[in-house]
Amino acid sequence: MSKRVKEILSYYGSDSPGTLSNLARMLNHGRLGGTGKMVILPVDQGFEHGPARSFAPNPPGYDPRAHFELGIDAGCNAYAAPLGFLEAGAAEFAGDIPLILKLNNSDSLYGGSDPCPAITGSVGDALRLGCSAIGFTIYPGSADRNEMYGQIRDLAEDAKAAGLAVVVWSYPRGSGITKEGETAIDVVAYAAQIACQLGAHVEKEKPPSDHIMQDAARKVYEKEGIPVGTLADRVRHVVQSAFNGRRIVIFSGGPAKGHDEMIEEIKGIAEGGGYGSIIGRNSFQRPKAQAIELLHEVMDIYANA
Amino acid sequence: MSKRVKEILSYYGSDSPGTLSNLARMLNHGRLGGTGKMVILPVDQGFEHGPARSFAPNPPGYDPRAHFELGIDAGCNAYAAPLGFLEAGAAEFAGDIPLILKLNNSDSLYGGSDPCPAITGSVGDALRLGCSAIGFTIYPGSADRNEMYGQIRDLAEDAKAAGLAVVVWSYPRGSGITKEGETAIDVVAYAAQIACQLGAHVEKEKPPSDHIMQDAARKVYEKEGIPVGTLADRVRHVVQSAFNGRRIVIFSGGPAKGHDEMIEEIKGIAEGGGYGSIIGRNSFQRPKAQAIELLHEVMDIYANA
Amino acid sequence: MSKRVKEILSYYGSDSPGTLSNLARMLNHGRLGGTGKMVILPVDQGFEHGPARSFAPNPPGYDPRAHFELGIDAGCNAYAAPLGFLEAGAAEFAGDIPLILKLNNSDSLYGGSDPCPAITGSVGDALRLGCSAIGFTIYPGSADRNEMYGQIRDLAEDAKAAGLAVVVWSYPRGSGITKEGETAIDVVAYAAQIACQLGAHVEKEKPPSDHIMQDAARKVYEKEGIPVGTLADRVRHVVQSAFNGRRIVIFSGGPAKGHDEMIEEIKGIAEGGGYGSIIGRNSFQRPKAQAIELLHEVMDIYANA
Amino acid sequence: MSKRVKEILSYYGSDSPGTLSNLARMLNHGRLGGTGKMVILPVDQGFEHGPARSFAPNPPGYDPRAHFELGIDAGCNAYAAPLGFLEAGAAEFAGDIPLILKLNNSDSLYGGSDPCPAITGSVGDALRLGCSAIGFTIYPGSADRNEMYGQIRDLAEDAKAAGLAVVVWSYPRGSGITKEGETAIDVVAYAAQIACQLGAHVEKEKPPSDHIMQDAARKVYEKEGIPVGTLADRVRHVVQSAFNGRRIVIFSGGPAKGHDEMIEEIKGIAEGGGYGSIIGRNSFQRPKAQAIELLHEVMDIYANA
Amino acid sequence: MSKRVKEILSYYGSDSPGTLSNLARMLNHGRLGGTGKMVILPVDQGFEHGPARSFAPNPPGYDPRAHFELGIDAGCNAYAAPLGFLEAGAAEFAGDIPLILKLNNSDSLYGGSDPCPAITGSVGDALRLGCSAIGFTIYPGSADRNEMYGQIRDLAEDAKAAGLAVVVWSYPRGSGITKEGETAIDVVAYAAQIACQLGAHVEKEKPPSDHIMQDAARKVYEKEGIPVGTLADRVRHVVQSAFNGRRIVIFSGGPAKGHDEMIEEIKGIAEGGGYGSIIGRNSFQRPKAQAIELLHEVMDIYANA
Repeated sequence: MSKRVKEILSYYGSDSPGTLSNLARMLNHGRLGGTGKMVILPVDQGFEHGPARSFAPNPPGYDPRAHFELGIDAGCNAYAAPLGFLEAGAAEFAGDIPLILKLNNSDSLYGGSDPCPAITGSVGDALRLGCSAIGFTIYPGSADRNEMYGQIRDLAEDAKAAGLAVVVWSYPRGSGITKEGETAIDVVAYAAQIACQLGAHVEKEKPPSDHIMQDAARKVYEKEGIPVGTLADRVRHVVQSAFNGRRIVIFSGGPAKGHDEMIEEIKGIAEGGGYGSIIGRNSFQRPKAQAIELLHEVMDIYANA
Repeated sequence: MSKRVKEILSYYGSDSPGTLSNLARMLNHGRLGGTGKMVILPVDQGFEHGPARSFAPNPPGYDPRAHFELGIDAGCNAYAAPLGFLEAGAAEFAGDIPLILKLNNSDSLYGGSDPCPAITGSVGDALRLGCSAIGFTIYPGSADRNEMYGQIRDLAEDAKAAGLAVVVWSYPRGSGITKEGETAIDVVAYAAQIACQLGAHVEKEKPPSDHIMQDAARKVYEKEGIPVGTLADRVRHVVQSAFNGRRIVIFSGGPAKGHDEMIEEIKGIAEGGGYGSIIGRNSFQRPKAQAIELLHEVMDIYANA
Repeated sequence: MSKRVKEILSYYGSDSPGTLSNLARMLNHGRLGGTGKMVILPVDQGFEHGPARSFAPNPPGYDPRAHFELGIDAGCNAYAAPLGFLEAGAAEFAGDIPLILKLNNSDSLYGGSDPCPAITGSVGDALRLGCSAIGFTIYPGSADRNEMYGQIRDLAEDAKAAGLAVVVWSYPRGSGITKEGETAIDVVAYAAQIACQLGAHVEKEKPPSDHIMQDAARKVYEKEGIPVGTLADRVRHVVQSAFNGRRIVIFSGGPAKGHDEMIEEIKGIAEGGGYGSIIGRNSFQRPKAQAIELLHEVMDIYANA
Repeated sequence: MSKRVKEILSYYGSDSPGTLSNLARMLNHGRLGGTGKMVILPVDQGFEHGPARSFAPNPPGYDPRAHFELGIDAGCNAYAAPLGFLEAGAAEFAGDIPLILKLNNSDSLYGGSDPCPAITGSVGDALRLGCSAIGFTIYPGSADRNEMYGQIRDLAEDAKAAGLAVVVWSYPRGSGITKEGETAIDVVAYAAQIACQLGAHVEKEKPPSDHIMQDAARKVYEKEGIPVGTLADRVRHVVQSAFNGRRIVIFSGGPAKGHDEMIEEIKGIAEGGGYGSIIGRNSFQRPKAQAIELLHEVMDIYANA
Repeated sequence: MSKRVKEILSYYGSDSPGTLSNLARMLNHGRLGGTGKMVILPVDQGFEHGPARSFAPNPPGYDPRAHFELGIDAGCNAYAAPLGFLEAGAAEFAGDIPLILKLNNSDSLYGGSDPCPAITGSVGDALRLGCSAIGFTIYPGSADRNEMYGQIRDLAEDAKAAGLAVVVWSYPRGSGITKEGETAIDVVAYAAQIACQLGAHVEKEKPPSDHIMQDAARKVYEKEGIPVGTLADRVRHVVQSAFNGRRIVIFSGGPAKGHDEMIEEIKGIAEGGGYGSIIGRNSFQRPKAQAIELLHEVMDIYANA
């Protein structure tokens, strides 16, 4: 095992050999295997946004096998999806790529300002499908945040006891948060801290803007002169907020965007010390060859960071 | 076993031999046995609409045995009903037709815009009654949708562990959905996707209209030119949205209607690649001989599709 | 065992020998034993209406032993009461009369339009007290109906697994129901159907009026010409709605009333094919000798029906 | 064992030898041991009203040991308190006095018209602390009454299975009850009935006034001529409402009051056939010697009743 | 073991040798070991206030190891933190300092007047991380207080069964409490009593002001002449309210403040008989050397009290 992966594993001193093995499995798999960086393929948009909005731009994606194949062929560190999508390929592709079972999901047929996803899978499901980790979304700032925190705490305890790793999507949203605040640097850093304190091994955040939402935080940012001018600065602060870099923080790509804009963003994340990216729509909504090309370009930025 | 049934079973690679056997039992039973198509008889209207509205048009239907006999004599693939109706015949007709125990139901003595049915049966009930599957209704678009998703997730995990199959009625309804939206093509396709992601083996949808409810979806349907002009087009899209045809999607018949109108609809479903129909009021509210004649006509359309 | 009782037991083909034995125990006990008819003594008014309103008209009824003695000496098929009343006599009168433990109850010190009783006993309590059945009240039409349906479903599953029978008081009430609708024929028939579908072995209904509450039902009653002119007609329809007579439906007596009025009502129930009566205030609020005389008169009507 | 205690135990024919032993332990302990009467010392005011309001009038009461010592030295039948107070002396005074662990409590830092206490102890706690009984408060008339009824039902089942006795404080209060109605004779009698029906072995009520709150009850009280003119009359009616005297009903002392007023009240309770008193503030807020003197005076009234 | 520690342990006569050992472990550790006084380092501000507000003033604090090191090197009796922070150092610093796992936490991204923290850890977590105690925050005065009381009751029962100690942060807050009332002497004394009655071994309170919030309490304070003029007076009353000094009560430091102001406060607490302090922001937001210097100054005040 590479020195860097060994070092990262050393951050997780309270975890069992089982969980460490699953973390290692993800860190050592694929094109970035051994670098300590990760690019994960997540496909939960079928549930979250609906099938046509997710898969019509690249229709092979209606077939759940396409995403396993993309993750494997692009050399991603892991593939994350809800129960149905994993059930539809876990046997056929057993052992080909580490899997992360998303245990909660929201659909967009019902609105509401304070999201609290449905529980859509279990630790038992993750085990029977041969997964390396469970995934879970929390929405700090939602009126129901405490329900989500309590759910992931329960699930994480069970997952750790079963030797699985825990990946938390920590997305500020809800009536406690302004629209601009969802990506504000103080809020994203706080969201990373919450996920770490809840016992996550890997946190996923959105790339933060230079907006500061909380008055009480703004005073500190100004007084202490915390640099937030560039994306690299901000990513550095989020990584710092994730136990000073001793927890794996990766960043989402957000809605499909142009190639250059995306590459620019990845460079900022890499420069700021981010552990990697989780890239959904920007990969699976492109034809497979183009998606692999783009993912490789992204991976190479991280490999050389 | 027929090649087509073997192929369908191959889509369910994460399931146990027990669950595959029960899926096979339904696919291989009755007049459509072995074709990969299904016509299921469901009788939950006594609970959902009341006894007189359900059975007065054809009074033998007050007796629970009548529905077992109709399902058996018409050669349906399975018979689905709530606890009481199955308890009233499961012993007498043991082994004569695969049974699906509906585990949740709503009555219409209390209204409300956001339905969330009562749990009216258990996996244990399904096992002691010799059922092949559990049935469960979800209402995407209801304020309580997440409670239903969580319930079916729990029940489905237990059902799969017990070797049962899982059939989900996925009916968009509730304050997130307009009246027209309940059968809108984007909404019905989304509802099919949700049921699949929740781990259902078989989904039941209403035949979709060409209305598109969600603005975000309309843009994609228009941009990508997804054909929704004919019922066959729309059924094809729903089947695609159910993991590209790798999950069994069947369609409901809705309120009792004329013979010709119904046959027309079945032809559209069959042409679009639907796996079959679930026909309640249009069968059991007719005298038995007429009901069987109609069901055979429907089955023959599927058999020849 | 009488042919009629054997026939009734044959309706319950999904039940265990234990549950069949307890059904038989009730059907074979007392003055109506073996006739297939039942008269049950229920005393939950102490909880539901308070002690003075219930027992002051006949003060020996303050003592829980009085009701055991009335049930035994009058030759009722069973005696039903809440936990406290049964605990206060179950040992002393062990084996003298089949007991039904009422598992939920409401008091009248707090109002509210949507009743949902408290759970006041358990299946374990029923077993340790030597009961033959559990009793449970549901209020179709209440905003909380689904909670009650879920509760009885759970309790009924446990009761059946323990070889007990399940008796359901199905009383339409709540904000979904008009005052007149509580005894409307369409609503009472619907309530009987719901109790049957929930797996009850015995249902208790109020004698229905000729009012029809639901518009959707009225159309069917008129179109199909369902006779509801006499009490016998209406009871016949309720019995039909209880799986075409294949579930035991008995009728409550309601508030204390005059002798002639009551006898008239019993005759209507008997003529319509009702399985019997459950008579509380009209029996225990009379002096014991008079109560026995009245109960015998009622029983004789059923015996000769 | 005295004839009277044997007789009282005979009322509890459904209880295990373990529970009977604990009832006997309380009935046979202290100055009233063997008389069938009880005086219990309860100290939950530290939780319910705060420490200064409870203990400043007699500061040794801040120390939890003081209450054990008062109960023991005064010869009370039992001492009842919440978890913390019992934990603070149960070992030191093991075996010196029967203990009742109060399993729910309310504080007065938050108001609200419909009380529902917090669960503050468990049957397991009662067992590990060597208690003879659990104590529980219900508030008939509160919007949350059914939650409390369900809680005590669960706890009582467990307590009985563990051989403990069950003591219920049944205090009408909440938005269903007027201020005057909290001690109205119809309401207090009803509260006693509810506690009995829920399976309590011992009920605690407030001394009732001659007010009648419920219209439906007033008609019966007037028609049947139930005497409620004197406290003795009213206590007699409450005892009658507690299964005709076949359940132990004791009465609370209420806020600290003058010696003569209190003695007058005790005489009325004793004359009406009450089983005894539960005296908190009127004892522990007096210096110990005075408290013992008063308690002995009270006990002697019961002993000579 | 010192005589004073032996004496303190003797207050906990209902606890198991396991729990007594863990209490002793905390009382005997560090610079104050054996004195019967405690200074605890708590670091939950990353969760409660966010990372920058908590750690930017002294950036090494972003690294969870820094707090273990501060607690160890300053000779604190124990270190308390949420799950993530303890997981990040429990193995590396195993055995170096007693640990308290905070089992519930609130973040400040969502407001609301009635706090009820999320459950963020379990007794099982505390055991696998080698902790000596669980920590839990209750908010008397919150509309959700009873939910918190019920939670700590459950957790405390499990913790005691597992031989752990129980530390309760009892902070009056919520819509039942005015802003000034949060530190009012009657309210703080009441909060201490509640924590003790709930079975806590150690309570943490805020230093009380001389304000009295409750009218009913004010009458008693005035009538009985309870001294509340100086901080020492008030601390003495809080200690009295914690079972007359037979439970360990320690005081929080509140927001970062000047050196002299803080030392003045500590002297008052020590003079009033407080068992010690729990000092977060005033320690870890200073550079380590300064923090240790301050903590030693505080400890020496207690050592010489």
